[in-house]
Formats: sequence, structure tokens, C-alpha cells
Amino acid sequence: MKALVYRGDHKIALEEKPKPSIKNTTDVIVKVSKTTICGTDLGIYKGKNLYMEEGIILGHEGVGIIEEVGDAVSQFKVGDKVLISCITSCGSCKYCKKQLYSHCEDGGWILGHMIDGVQAEYVRVPHADNSLHKVPNTLDDDVAVLLCDILPTGHEIGVQYGNVKLGDAIAIVGAGPVGMGVLLTAQFYSPAIIVVIDLDENRLEMAKELGATHVLKSSKNVEEELAKIVGEEGVDVAIEAVGIPQTWDICQKIVKPGGNIANVGVHGKKVDFELQDLWIKNLTITTGLVNTNTTPLLMKAISKIPADKLITHHFELNEIQKAYDVFLNASKEKAMKIIIDA
Amino acid sequence: MKALVYRGDHKIALEEKPKPSIKNTTDVIVKVSKTTICGTDLGIYKGKNLYMEEGIILGHEGVGIIEEVGDAVSQFKVGDKVLISCITSCGSCKYCKKQLYSHCEDGGWILGHMIDGVQAEYVRVPHADNSLHKVPNTLDDDVAVLLCDILPTGHEIGVQYGNVKLGDAIAIVGAGPVGMGVLLTAQFYSPAIIVVIDLDENRLEMAKELGATHVLKSSKNVEEELAKIVGEEGVDVAIEAVGIPQTWDICQKIVKPGGNIANVGVHGKKVDFELQDLWIKNLTITTGLVNTNTTPLLMKAISKIPADKLITHHFELNEIQKAYDVFLNASKEKAMKIIIDA
Amino acid sequence: MKALVYRGDHKIALEEKPKPSIKNTTDVIVKVSKTTICGTDLGIYKGKNLYMEEGIILGHEGVGIIEEVGDAVSQFKVGDKVLISCITSCGSCKYCKKQLYSHCEDGGWILGHMIDGVQAEYVRVPHADNSLHKVPNTLDDDVAVLLCDILPTGHEIGVQYGNVKLGDAIAIVGAGPVGMGVLLTAQFYSPAIIVVIDLDENRLEMAKELGATHVLKSSKNVEEELAKIVGEEGVDVAIEAVGIPQTWDICQKIVKPGGNIANVGVHGKKVDFELQDLWIKNLTITTGLVNTNTTPLLMKAISKIPADKLITHHFELNEIQKAYDVFLNASKEKAMKIIIDA
Amino acid sequence: MKALVYRGDHKIALEEKPKPSIKNTTDVIVKVSKTTICGTDLGIYKGKNLYMEEGIILGHEGVGIIEEVGDAVSQFKVGDKVLISCITSCGSCKYCKKQLYSHCEDGGWILGHMIDGVQAEYVRVPHADNSLHKVPNTLDDDVAVLLCDILPTGHEIGVQYGNVKLGDAIAIVGAGPVGMGVLLTAQFYSPAIIVVIDLDENRLEMAKELGATHVLKSSKNVEEELAKIVGEEGVDVAIEAVGIPQTWDICQKIVKPGGNIANVGVHGKKVDFELQDLWIKNLTITTGLVNTNTTPLLMKAISKIPADKLITHHFELNEIQKAYDVFLNASKEKAMKIIIDA
Repeated sequence: MKALVYRGDHKIALEEKPKPSIKNTTDVIVKVSKTTICGTDLGIYKGKNLYMEEGIILGHEGVGIIEEVGDAVSQFKVGDKVLISCITSCGSCKYCKKQLYSHCEDGGWILGHMIDGVQAEYVRVPHADNSLHKVPNTLDDDVAVLLCDILPTGHEIGVQYGNVKLGDAIAIVGAGPVGMGVLLTAQFYSPAIIVVIDLDENRLEMAKELGATHVLKSSKNVEEELAKIVGEEGVDVAIEAVGIPQTWDICQKIVKPGGNIANVGVHGKKVDFELQDLWIKNLTITTGLVNTNTTPLLMKAISKIPADKLITHHFELNEIQKAYDVFLNASKEKAMKIIIDA
Repeated sequence: MKALVYRGDHKIALEEKPKPSIKNTTDVIVKVSKTTICGTDLGIYKGKNLYMEEGIILGHEGVGIIEEVGDAVSQFKVGDKVLISCITSCGSCKYCKKQLYSHCEDGGWILGHMIDGVQAEYVRVPHADNSLHKVPNTLDDDVAVLLCDILPTGHEIGVQYGNVKLGDAIAIVGAGPVGMGVLLTAQFYSPAIIVVIDLDENRLEMAKELGATHVLKSSKNVEEELAKIVGEEGVDVAIEAVGIPQTWDICQKIVKPGGNIANVGVHGKKVDFELQDLWIKNLTITTGLVNTNTTPLLMKAISKIPADKLITHHFELNEIQKAYDVFLNASKEKAMKIIIDA
Repeated sequence: MKALVYRGDHKIALEEKPKPSIKNTTDVIVKVSKTTICGTDLGIYKGKNLYMEEGIILGHEGVGIIEEVGDAVSQFKVGDKVLISCITSCGSCKYCKKQLYSHCEDGGWILGHMIDGVQAEYVRVPHADNSLHKVPNTLDDDVAVLLCDILPTGHEIGVQYGNVKLGDAIAIVGAGPVGMGVLLTAQFYSPAIIVVIDLDENRLEMAKELGATHVLKSSKNVEEELAKIVGEEGVDVAIEAVGIPQTWDICQKIVKPGGNIANVGVHGKKVDFELQDLWIKNLTITTGLVNTNTTPLLMKAISKIPADKLITHHFELNEIQKAYDVFLNASKEKAMKIIIDA
Repeated sequence: MKALVYRGDHKIALEEKPKPSIKNTTDVIVKVSKTTICGTDLGIYKGKNLYMEEGIILGHEGVGIIEEVGDAVSQFKVGDKVLISCITSCGSCKYCKKQLYSHCEDGGWILGHMIDGVQAEYVRVPHADNSLHKVPNTLDDDVAVLLCDILPTGHEIGVQYGNVKLGDAIAIVGAGPVGMGVLLTAQFYSPAIIVVIDLDENRLEMAKELGATHVLKSSKNVEEELAKIVGEEGVDVAIEAVGIPQTWDICQKIVKPGGNIANVGVHGKKVDFELQDLWIKNLTITTGLVNTNTTPLLMKAISKIPADKLITHHFELNEIQKAYDVFLNASKEKAMKIIIDA
């Protein structure tokens, strides 16, 4: 089969690889029909991921049809259309028992990372009963791909951990795919004001279409600009969706007493935490990798949000390296999410 | 009346001051029978508090008898024995409506800070209906003094914000009065393991008497020592009860995935937040000043914990400057909480 | 001034009464500009309310301008446009401290019940700081009247107590004003399916316009009809919004394991509770009178729901007895909420 | 092997049955070392259980050593000492995903009910990874048996669903094994007052030893007697632990506004629910079958409560029919929990 293989720093190649087969009784084999590229895939491409070994197939998001099921699989059968969660979970370790699937002792983010992934014609999915979701007929396949990672990540780590509530004023710092996932799913909880902050005007324009009540181009004066919208005391929830010290810093400056900072960004270095000012502010700060435990809920309510507008490009699996090029130049190419048809 | 007055950096004096009188219809005047010295009082003495003006009477904790009530006071009458909460709250501003009394727009920590405090024979308490609690006959007056600040602070900002739960392993970093308040009130929630970490062996000894299941003398190897007790993954809840970068740093290293860090310490400078490691750990980090909204609950359950053991010294109001000397040398003097009889 | 006075069973009269004056320092006097009639006002008219004495002015909802403020009022001033909450709360008794304002020891539902109410040119509002809300310029006065009772009641006792969540299937049994308040405010939480059940086809039609995804005419087969929409296991949340045994009974039959029944209806007699079937179903059943603690949140988010569509009729205060006649024949008159301009 | 078999109404027999074997890859076979008799076992004996078929082995609680494991079992191995949860759960159906294991689509209460149970020398446990817990060396085997059902039931359905909190006044109506399970586990949350109500003076005496602060012999005046202890307004939490209309009725009369009623009892007929009085009281009423999701937490904290005092009798498996006789006459025999050594 065709599969996109990591070959070391800045090297990926669409290669011919053997079709995977069942290894454990809890596995299934999925024939992939759609996949996508994540920001963390670009991180791997750039050689930033210390755990990724050469030869591994990339990708941890996708939709497909089940081709084969292991003997212990009870929730799925051959022919089911499924979405493949970016998080694999055994369902019975101590972390899974707490629904902290991201820290599963025999799973977590392993697809396209520790084991062969989804940017291929076929993929073996371990612990299928807890790692797949049936795709109903009413759900568009492209949108289903967004439910593998980006929407549950925005929802769980941004919106739920951030405790976005009815009537809140919230700020989302970063209008990339993850920030947009926060923006879309925040609307399920009816905040009154959603301000999206970014440097890229094209992305801010898109944020308005996706439901932002206000957008702000990031600058030295961003705090003052924001205060004109939400008042001097700041926002109820500040959501960090970039992963650099500067955006963290904005978040800790704009949150009101009793408010929340939800960190969704993947950080590469430490940040300054201004505890001399913040110890007294009764803040709640959260971090996390998605558990995908809310994917079934998002599937039920997805029609209420314009999720499909996140998709800017389509490619065939044959063209996946070109798709990587586009996504690597996302700002110039005005790319947000790219669907790959396998 | 006699009152301890702040006269600038390292200067405090027991002076004769006019007895306070009712200013607003929501005030009461309390004849103080007992008060105490807080770590933040020492901070004022050392000139570290930027808001404190010369001439203000110190102190924000105490027990006494109501001598006079304003016309709009409905919950209290002359002769009631009350404990004076360290937090004054109007009960009707937007923060009070959320029970975030610490950020009351006409209150918060104002006694002994913005207005004359409790280290005196009499004190005017604004917004009395929301800032006092009746002391039942069954409650010892000395213990009632501990319910003005130290115990609700440990409970709300350490235990509740830290989400200490049945069966948890928790670590309290710092065995001063605040850390001990956490230690005592954590026991209301039945964690399985409570490790107290400090440099002072005398305080560690006291921690054992107050309910710690384990104590650790802080050192370079404190993480490894802790791992022997709770396992490699760390604790469910790490509670910072000192207020310096080193103790924050211990907390961020010892907390398990999905765990909590509750910052109770008052910090004077920023800390490093290792987001490059922690973004993926699904942590919840909290900060805060006490709201004292749990004081009535603590009063009901106080007999279940050995709170009185926190009290190491007693002085008369006449001797209060000597009491400050003892508390300034708390380690040498083996002092934890000092009761001042007015 | 003109005021609608209760004169005993089935007797109400628009009379000339003295303008109210400040009694306590926490009172304000409001010049009423708008009021409305509640289902409980009809209950009083019909002589069903045991606590209501002859001579009391009716009404507990309204919008107006503050004309006079007591000395201890801090949050409001003369000239403020305010909405008058149906619940009066002192803010400092033990129930208010838990935000259970409906059980305030010196308040609760007292306007138009224990003391003179809002169906008049002027009204005295006790404990003004905790019982009024400023009306922003952006809020329509008619909609503000709906925020005095019907919308917070639907929201707090139906939606919040019922724990309506993202993706839920919910059923609202009863499409009167309270059921419609539930229907409107449920949408803030993005349930996937909202089924409204009633006997009145006109009201079902209105429910569709207000956001119901499905409507069902109540019948013997209502459970089977509902199962076709939500599946055999039933709904996540069943909301009783009538107050009779038959509608309660529907609720206990249609809720799934782990689900919620929120009782909003005012009941006149006991109901059968089928514990022999339900003890095993892990249900949560709630009851309650509104606390109005979410009124400020609803004000911020009200533009997201078509609340104004609830209003079907307008009358002048002079015509208020005619308005009662219309509301007493609500089904025939196709009346939902009636605004009275004072 | 020897096993206690249900042979129809009032007929049970210790018979020779074939040793069970692995049927599904997720099964294990446990050699039972200890088991016990539950109130529901007596219900089966009395012919009250409609689902129980003749020939089924009784019992759903026990401790033993794993003798054989299915191929898909990952959390357990041969030789592990385990406690067998009364609830079997697949871990991947829609109910298990919500931790509502009691309603597992391929589990729930099936041992000794739908499939052969634990009152035998060996038992086959389906879905072992989610239905067993390792017994640590520090845990007494007899106490471990109590963790199979009675303690998690009291904890989850009584204490957690009832929302027992710091400082609460609670009443437990019924001092049988389930009520005692509530009594023991409530103490983990530090309520201030625990009143146990029953007709049996011997059981009330035992309740005192297990931690009740007050006991009341049930009578017509029980409400007034209780009011002397907790005040006229009633208790924060009333826990029904019998399963008859009379005890439900006590609960609905003694709970304060804003309080909780947690129904733990197994009911055989409907009860009257006095909604005409209770619609206004802002109550939360819960029902449920145990999920056993808190068993691991209880294991960690069990040393804080005198659980072993629940055990009044010991028998050998050979004598199990005699043990049933004792438990059927529990009041006369002063029996609470009986351990059967297999």
C-alpha cells in the first residue's frame, strides 16, 4: 500500500509499504478514505519530535471503513464507517478509568508517532473498542476528519478546561487550526464575547466567519485594545493556542480575578509565570493533551457550528507531499485544514 | 485605646489611639478579646507591602464582643461574640455575587491594610453582615482566632482549589502556619497519603502530630525521596505554601498527569513555568486569596482536627511587640501561631 | 397611584393607593414602566394561594426607573433603569450565603405575595442591592420584563438543575410560559434534540419557532412517539413544566438511565413516584423555586435566543383587568406573555 | 466443585457443579477464597427476583486467586489476589464510557443473577480488566469482601449521590448493611452530624460504634426527635437505606431547603412523592445501582474507617445454608455481614 513515511529531519516520502495486519485481538484494520495533516505532523517533519523514529508512517487523524476486526473487538464490525481518534486508549488502565485517555498506559498519542499512522491506505488501530467512533450517515466525511483531533482538542483543552460559560467574555490567542477549534466549540456554551487575537489578518477574517464577535491584530497595545472591548478587568477565560512565551504572556495579562487560562498550545520552552501579581487573583490555569472523550457529544451537536468552513484545501493521497508544502506555508497559502482523500 | 500602629519600614508601636466609631450603617464596633499575628503582618513590618500607609493599625484576625451596631446591620446585635474574618465583603458587588469575596469592590483584605485593623482594643468592621461570624459556645476562643484566616486559607486555596480527594496522595511544600492550615483541613477529605516537606525539622515533627502520614526534609533529592513514598508518577496534588521560586519548582516536578498544583504562598517574584514539559500533563494550577466563604463549615467540623495544637505561644496585648519578635524568629523560637489576649 | 389589588377569591381591582415610601435603609422606590402577569398571579386570583391576604397589590415582575434610594443602598442610584427580580434577597442570611435566594430568611417571593407588588405605578423593593439588576441600553424593556422571572426560572430550575448538556436529547413537558422559558434557555447549552410535548397545537407551533427540534401532541402513545425520535432508552433530561400528576408521570417514564428529571411546575397535589422501577436507574430529580442568581448571565447572552417572540399581547395598566381575562383564557386567546405598560 | 445453586422459590442447595472455564478472551477464572451473602441474595431466595432462573449459582461478592486468564486480559495474571466487583463492565459501551458501569450493555449486575456467581469454589468473571481489583497485601481479605458491594454502594449511591459535605447534618434511615455502608463511608467527607434511624436497638448500638454521632429509634415522633438534634429546618442530606414507602416518607419530611435525598434502598412498590410541598424546596433526589467506580479509592482510604466491625459472623462454604438461615434472621441473630470462607 501507499503510505507517507518519516525518513528523518525534513524528509518524508510516499512509499510502498506492506498492508498492516491484526496483531492483538483488540485491533482492527481500517481502509483509510480520508486523512489530514496536523501541526504536530509538521513538528515531526521539522525534526522536533524526540520520540519519532525513522520509518514510521505519519498521521493520527482519519476516516475509513473497517476491513478486519480482532477477536476481542465487540463494538465494531467489518464494513463500519469509523473515525479514528488521535488518541488510542485501552479503557482499563488507571488513567483510562479516570477518562484521562491521553495518558493511557498502553495508548495515548501513538498513531503516527510510536506506531504506524493514518497517512496511508490502511492502518492498524489498537484497542479499537475505545479508539474508534462510528460515523453516522448524517455526518459529512470531511467534517468527521475534523472530529479526530482538532475539534475535540479545542473543546476539551480549550473550552472545557477553560470553563467557558454562559455570558462569559473570552479571548482566544492564536487563530491557527487549534484556535479555530476552540472558537467553533466555544459557541456550544454561549459566551457573550469571543475575541480572537492573531497577527495574520486573513485568519482574523476567517475567525469572524467562524463566529468571533471581535478580532484583534496582535500588537504591543493588545491589552489596551482588548480592554476597550471587555473592560479593564479583562476576560473570564484566556485561551493560549500557539505555544510560545509571548502568547502565554498575553494570556496571563488579560485574565480577570477568578478567571481561567487554558493552555492548548504545544510549547518548546519554559515561560515566565508572574506569580508575584497572580498569586492573589484566584486563577485557574490548565494544560493538557486531548482525551477525545467528548467526541461522541461533538458528533451529535456538530450541525450547530460551521465546522466545514475550516477546510480550505483538498488533495489526493498521491499528492500528500504537495499538501505538506501548502500546510508548511499556511499563512501564504491561506490554508487552515487540508483534507487528503486516500 | 491601645493599638499597634505601623510607623514605616521596621517600625511598629503600641500607641494610644481614639476608639473607633460607626461610620456607615453597615458597620459594627467590636471590643477585641483575642487577636494574632499573620505572616503578612510580618511582611508589612518589613516594609514589603506597597499599599500600607503609616499610621494604620495592624492586624486582620480576631475574636471579640460586639459593642455597637450600625442601623442597617441585621445579622448581629450588641453582645454577640464574633470572629472577625480577614476578608471584608459587601455581599452585593459582582465579585461577592460569585462568592469571590477576596475581590469585593468595597472590601477584600482591608483590615490592618487599607483601614485600621484588629491588633487593638476595639475595631470598626465594615459590612458586618458579611464579614463576621457568630462564635458558638462550643468553640474555644483561641481556635476561633485560627478560623479568621489561617484555616480558611489552607482549606479554600490549598485543599479546595487543589481538589484534594478521597484516597489521594498529596504533598504540602512548606510547614509554616499556612502549610499547617492545609495539613489540618486536608484531613476533612480523607486523602490516603499526606507528605509535608520543609527544611525545619522541628516543624516536620509538628506536622506529624498534626496528621502528616510522612514528612521529608527538603533537599536536592526531594523528588526521589518522595517517589519512594508515592511512586514515580508523583502526587495527585502538590500544594505550594511558601511563596518562593524553589518551592514552586518542587511542586511542578512532583505532580502526576491529571493532577493539581495549588499555590497558597505569597510570591514576591516571578517563577519559571516549565510548559515545555507540562503542556501535555493535563494539570490544573490554581492561585488565590481566601474568600472565607467556608468559615461556617469549618466551624461546624473543627472538632475533628487538632487545630489547637497550632498554637505555640500566648501574649497580652501590652506585650505585642515582644510577640512580633518571637514570630520574626519563628524557627528559633519554635513558634507557629501566637495568640494575643487584648 | 393606580395599583391592582387582591380583594379575595376571584376578586381583583385597579384602585387608587398611596405611593409607597422607603421603610428600611436598604429599600428603593421604583417607578414602574412595565410589568406582566405570571401564572402564579392567576393562582392568587383563583384563591389558591394560602398566604395571600386581601388588600395586597399583585405582581412580582417589572422594569422601571429608581425614584428614591435608602441610605444603605450602594449599588443603585436615582434614575437607574432596573429590572425587579421576582425574588427579594437580603444577601447575608444562611440561605443567601449559599445563593439559595429563593429561601432568603427576609425575602424570597414576597413581592405581590407578602408585601405590595409591581402591578402598580410605584413599588417599594426591599434589599435593593441584591434584588434589582441594571438594565443596559442594549436590552429591550419588554425582554427585560421576561428576565424578572420566566427566563431565570426556565434556566435555573429547568435547564441548570436538569443538567442539560452538549448533545443531549431533552423533552419539555408543557409549552406554557415556563416551558417556553426552558425551551429558550436550554439552547444556550447546545442539546442536540429538544422535544416539546403539549396538548395545545398552537403552542406546539410556537415551540417550533422558539427552537424546538421536534414537537409532540400529548396522547396515550406519547412514550412510543417519543421513542421514535430519541430511541427506546429515552431522553437525557425530562423537564416537567405543568405541575400535575399526569405530566410528572410522563417524565418518570421517558428518562434514560443516568438521566435527570427537573420539576419546574407548581404542584397542588402529591404524585406517584415509581421507585420500584426507578431505584435502579441512577436518576437525579430536582425541584425548586428560582434564585435569580443567573439573571446577569442571561442578560449578557439574551441576544442569542428569540426571547421577544414569547410576547403575544400588550396592554396599558388601565386595562390590566382585561389583560387578566386574556391570560385566564390563554389557550383560546393564543396568549403566552402579556406586557403591561404602566 | 461445590456451589450454592438456586432451585426456585425458597430453595437453595449446595451442589456439585462443573468447574467453570474461559468462554471469552476477556474472561478470567477465580478460585474463590471468601464470599458473603447480600440482601439481594435473600430476595432471590424468597423468589422476589423476576430475572433469576433455576440452576444459577448465587452470589456476587468475593475475594480469590486468579487461576486462568483469557487471551485479551491485560491487567491481571494467574496468581493475582483479586476482589470481584458485584458489577461487571465491558468498559467500552456507551454507559461504560460515562462510568455508568451498572448499566453496562454487556454487564451490570450479572454474577449470581444472569450468570453463575461467586458462592462457589470457582467463578468465571467476564470482562475481567474492568470487573476485578487487585487486593494489596495491606488489605485484610475479610474487609476486601466488603469492598465488592456494600461499601461502594453506600459510598456512591448514598454519600456521593447525596452530596455529603464538610459540616453537613445527615440522617441515614435504616441501619442494615447498606445503611452501615453509608455510615462508614460518609465519614470520609466530614459531616458534622450523622443521625442513624432504625427500629432495631441492637443495630443502633452498632451504629454508634461505627461512627454515628446520634441514633434515633424510629417512631411516629421521629421528625420531632430529629429536630431536637439538627433544628427545625431538617438535615442537609437524608439517605433512604431500607426500600419501603415508610422510610422514603421520613426522608422527604426531614430534608431542608436546598438539601438532598439519596435513595439507596431497593423498592418493591411505588411511593408517594409530596410535590405539593416539595416543588418549592430546591431538592435533589437521586436513585441508583452502584457503579463500583470508586472501589480503588475506597481501598486506599479504608484504614480510616472501622469497616471490619461490620463483620459479625464467619462460616465455611460447607455451612453456607446455615449462614443463609442466620442472615434471614439477622435481627434475632444480631447479624450484619457474614463472611463465608471457601
